[in-house]
Amino acid sequence: MSSITVIGSGNMARGIGARAVAADYDLQILDRDANKAAALAEELGAGEAGAVGDALTGEIVVLAVPFEAASEIVSLYAGALDRKVLVDITNPVDFSTFAGLTVPVDTSGAQEIAKAAPTGTRVVKAFNTTFAGPLVNGEVDGEVLDVLMAGDDDDAKATLAAFVEAAGLRPIDVGGLSMAHWLEGLGLINMAVAAESGNWGRIIKFLG
Amino acid sequence: MSSITVIGSGNMARGIGARAVAADYDLQILDRDANKAAALAEELGAGEAGAVGDALTGEIVVLAVPFEAASEIVSLYAGALDRKVLVDITNPVDFSTFAGLTVPVDTSGAQEIAKAAPTGTRVVKAFNTTFAGPLVNGEVDGEVLDVLMAGDDDDAKATLAAFVEAAGLRPIDVGGLSMAHWLEGLGLINMAVAAESGNWGRIIKFLG
Repeated sequence: MSSITVIGSGNMARGIGARAVAADYDLQILDRDANKAAALAEELGAGEAGAVGDALTGEIVVLAVPFEAASEIVSLYAGALDRKVLVDITNPVDFSTFAGLTVPVDTSGAQEIAKAAPTGTRVVKAFNTTFAGPLVNGEVDGEVLDVLMAGDDDDAKATLAAFVEAAGLRPIDVGGLSMAHWLEGLGLINMAVAAESGNWGRIIKFLG
Repeated sequence: MSSITVIGSGNMARGIGARAVAADYDLQILDRDANKAAALAEELGAGEAGAVGDALTGEIVVLAVPFEAASEIVSLYAGALDRKVLVDITNPVDFSTFAGLTVPVDTSGAQEIAKAAPTGTRVVKAFNTTFAGPLVNGEVDGEVLDVLMAGDDDDAKATLAAFVEAAGLRPIDVGGLSMAHWLEGLGLINMAVAAESGNWGRIIKFLG
């Protein structure tokens, strides 16, 4: 059976966890506080809960934590990640202005996370342009969410795309990991528009 | 009556020109080759055609030319632009790879165009995330096109937003001109996905 580990227990962990349940994937939820992981598993009605540091059971590992916390988790697991698809969903946004990112202009959060991981770790940027609320239902106004992905390893993207489709969503491959810079910019645009309108329930959809 | 000048006679000039006709704006079409401008005006059934260098009659001036040609046109008109809303629709994309932009990482095409213009010229980035084909009809699958805009002058954005609405589309303000960097990245994503799928008829829509 296909399997996924979600690290984190916040809104995005809830959204992706709900999609994992819909996809009928084996779900592992890890948090620094194992009680929070257990609470999310109970809410979702599925999932094996544990603490960050426990062995990873998912073939896909989703970093559903703030960008600032991601590199430390990657360093902690190190070599255990080399057979995984490591999914970076973070938005390194300046939340005081919604007008820029907190990473240098010549890189991206995803590329920085890849640098923190052992050479060859297969990092895919995805789910940073989908808000947590719409992820729970998987659709808005009858349209399924588009999940934009960037990564250098085609097999890793195919593994993630299979999860996305099983979860009832549509994967869209936008290119190599360097395109994560632009996906993070789209995450910023998405948040800037949401902060201005107060509507955090929108999805970005390619129509036609 | 409200008025718009479109500089260029290619696919994007056709799309925005068609929207100007739908909006019932006075339309001026200028091209280096006045015959091409006249042909587009005839095709649209409206518009006063002329050559680049003619006096600008539109309160909104759209640079529907390749990025490489934009700065020269801005320099040519110089001070005549200071009472206009100058709309940069360009995508400075590396068309050989669809994996990056041709402008440095710490700027954007729009900001470079603004530098080439007299101080105070009101530049708005817009229409670079909408393909020419869908612009002609203004909608796809019953959903009107979203026109994402970035600029530092709120009055200029309001003037452009009024045109966008009159044209039957939905304006979305994403912030100041520095956000043009990210809109150009979204243009790149849009083109990368289109080049991969062969579908240049899609629109990017915020739903919900």
